[in-house]
Amino acid sequence: MSQLSELLSTNYDKNIEELKELLRIQSISSLSEHKEDVQKAASWISNKLKTIGMEHVEIIQTKGHPIIYGDLIHKEGAPTVLVYGHYDVQPVDPVDLWETPPFEPTIRDEKIFARGATDDKGQMFLHIKAVETLLESDGSLPVNIKFCIEGEEEIGSPNLPHFLSENKEKLSCDVVLISDTDMWEKGVPAITCSLRGLCALEITLKTANSDLHSGMFGGGVQNANHLLVQLLSTLHDANGKVNVDHFYDNVIELTDYEKEQMAELGFDEEKLKQSLGLTNLTGGEKDYPYRERISSRPTLEINGLWGGFQGEGTKTVIPNEAHVKITCRLVNNQHPEKIQQLVKKHLEENAPIGCTVEVSLGDTGNPFLTPIDSPMMQTAAEAYKKVYGKSPVYKREGGSIPIVSDFNKILNAPVVLMGFGLPGENLHAPNEHFHLENFDKGILTICSFLELIEK
Amino acid sequence: MSQLSELLSTNYDKNIEELKELLRIQSISSLSEHKEDVQKAASWISNKLKTIGMEHVEIIQTKGHPIIYGDLIHKEGAPTVLVYGHYDVQPVDPVDLWETPPFEPTIRDEKIFARGATDDKGQMFLHIKAVETLLESDGSLPVNIKFCIEGEEEIGSPNLPHFLSENKEKLSCDVVLISDTDMWEKGVPAITCSLRGLCALEITLKTANSDLHSGMFGGGVQNANHLLVQLLSTLHDANGKVNVDHFYDNVIELTDYEKEQMAELGFDEEKLKQSLGLTNLTGGEKDYPYRERISSRPTLEINGLWGGFQGEGTKTVIPNEAHVKITCRLVNNQHPEKIQQLVKKHLEENAPIGCTVEVSLGDTGNPFLTPIDSPMMQTAAEAYKKVYGKSPVYKREGGSIPIVSDFNKILNAPVVLMGFGLPGENLHAPNEHFHLENFDKGILTICSFLELIEK
Repeated sequence: MSQLSELLSTNYDKNIEELKELLRIQSISSLSEHKEDVQKAASWISNKLKTIGMEHVEIIQTKGHPIIYGDLIHKEGAPTVLVYGHYDVQPVDPVDLWETPPFEPTIRDEKIFARGATDDKGQMFLHIKAVETLLESDGSLPVNIKFCIEGEEEIGSPNLPHFLSENKEKLSCDVVLISDTDMWEKGVPAITCSLRGLCALEITLKTANSDLHSGMFGGGVQNANHLLVQLLSTLHDANGKVNVDHFYDNVIELTDYEKEQMAELGFDEEKLKQSLGLTNLTGGEKDYPYRERISSRPTLEINGLWGGFQGEGTKTVIPNEAHVKITCRLVNNQHPEKIQQLVKKHLEENAPIGCTVEVSLGDTGNPFLTPIDSPMMQTAAEAYKKVYGKSPVYKREGGSIPIVSDFNKILNAPVVLMGFGLPGENLHAPNEHFHLENFDKGILTICSFLELIEK
Repeated sequence: MSQLSELLSTNYDKNIEELKELLRIQSISSLSEHKEDVQKAASWISNKLKTIGMEHVEIIQTKGHPIIYGDLIHKEGAPTVLVYGHYDVQPVDPVDLWETPPFEPTIRDEKIFARGATDDKGQMFLHIKAVETLLESDGSLPVNIKFCIEGEEEIGSPNLPHFLSENKEKLSCDVVLISDTDMWEKGVPAITCSLRGLCALEITLKTANSDLHSGMFGGGVQNANHLLVQLLSTLHDANGKVNVDHFYDNVIELTDYEKEQMAELGFDEEKLKQSLGLTNLTGGEKDYPYRERISSRPTLEINGLWGGFQGEGTKTVIPNEAHVKITCRLVNNQHPEKIQQLVKKHLEENAPIGCTVEVSLGDTGNPFLTPIDSPMMQTAAEAYKKVYGKSPVYKREGGSIPIVSDFNKILNAPVVLMGFGLPGENLHAPNEHFHLENFDKGILTICSFLELIEK
């Protein structure tokens, strides 16, 4: 262990430079103008895997962005670990709120700032470095290893489930290891045992056949913005509950035991409010405590809305179109496709008089829940303890990694979510960063896990 | 008259080419990147006035865009007519809805399509051509004439009232003549006797100190879009009335006589709905008929709203900012500044828990009402009758020309609003146009008015 640690110290500058190289690539999967950048990131990963000694490395084209596969299978009888991660990133707007440009990685206060620093390039890179370090130190790995790194996680992994189904043999493994989640807090590791699912919808509301002048028509004809407000105001009730029929039908409430555990862990509400610049935390359902709302309750969020004039100055226009982007976070046992249909139905049925409402359905992803007492989970806990000196918290995560549930079901293998991010690292927001204290420690924890499951 | 008519026929192609030149200039007053274009339009007007023989032509700089003045005062004892118009135009977005580019004037179906074709470059240009034609025909004008053409009408004429106050002597006149309004319908002229006023507000709603990831915070923290919807849903009641305290306090209801006149004129609701692509006309106050709502009732319109992600694909963001642009159309005797304060107060008092609401106040303009039996109004009616063969309708206009009330009050002169636009010419919207049948007829009507008031 100390030998690995020394090796990492020696290679630290080189390793960080390599990470920066990867972070510079603008691999935004949701924007078609970045298609080539996404390919560039795929090539980068593929070359890196070859360089560290992985075999059978290939860039596998899909209908969307490519998947990278590579393996090193030399330990007959030893367990096989499949590492999953993603090299695509979220868009960067509003770009003017970044203190340093999103694709110019910059180190400040022992954090590295860049889009993808923590989600997920930074965390995925730890696995590449763990393998490289073990090989450099011992000449071989204690286990068999496979990499499966995709470029469509941020758009809901539309092509990965098919790829998994078609390549069950190739990807067969004893455990799927993923680092795309957070620790509990600075110095306190966590293993995520639950993830929320997701579904997305986009709405276009239309009135007249063109924008109209409010001097000629104001007070007479429908304003798309007004009708949009009317429609959207039906989506939540006064208590913050989602006001869509049957939305909560399949939600599994937390058990009393889980609620107690959550209470024991404590929660510094004042600190959180201060860090977010908020005087209160009144989003979502009033009847549930904050930590439960963000982890084990479903939501419906308006991620974007727009209609009419957004330019400088005044324009006395009656807009004839308005738009909304919605995503729902879902929990066990909600079905993403079913929820999409319920929300669509609600929007269509509540469309105000005088407009048409078109609803298009977007990405979906299943929620995930895993038992915390499985052998692989326990081994992961041991690895964390060795490096961080503390047992990890078992955490319900509010985010979605839709593919986790697919890995679990299609490959019939346990999934271990070993996160090295920290809360507040601004993923999906301006000034995303990763705390560098978890760089070498993250690599060591992964090395330790690989060594421990060998036994 | 027939001599003028022949002269106009002879010069038609040249005149249209000149108008096209003016329409090509992108003089959007509200966008700072078009500042030079606005100056260019000012120079164009100034040169044109000199070319047709106007004297003392000057481009007068203001704190914003310049005013052009010119006069021809050779008829001692004859009335003096002050012509007002504006050479600035509205923005052009959404630009992809224009069938031909907004600044490439194109003639189709005897209409000229371009931003400013009817509002107001096209109509203002008729006065230049009327003076030129009379001078070419008779060698002199029947009256004294002054031009005052500004470049800030579309942003609420912030500098014109001051200019009028400071130049009362220079601008003194017996009548102010303005063409920036519509006829009743094809072939039926109209004189506008009332205009609505205007006030604008812009709202920024803020929650956390940055955008947040809905996976980490969804269900826990306030979403600026949700709070915006909540806030905006308080602005109108279920009957479409503006739900702001004291909003209607100073509104003068139509008299029974005016209501009868409005009913007599008739209104083809089906035709209007068809032309707008609407199945019903349910904007504004349910308790008032359509034509009353768009002309003599005040409104509050959300001209623009936006918050969060508008790009391609999905972004699971909880936006921390949302924005709204509002304008109110006002009627006699509402005070624009007072209404701004009432709306601001409403927005601040109804700000949902968990956000800050900043309201900034924009343009204002007074409503206008003039007696229809004044001598100048009657002369204008006669001029229309000579050219169009029909007496004009006296019309309450839903639009705003804030400066009209100022001309009336500051220069203490009657204002005659002699419009040559037609309803449906898409001013402030894509595919703005002007019906060319009113080009020569408009010029002739103006010539006729100048000849008739001489007597």
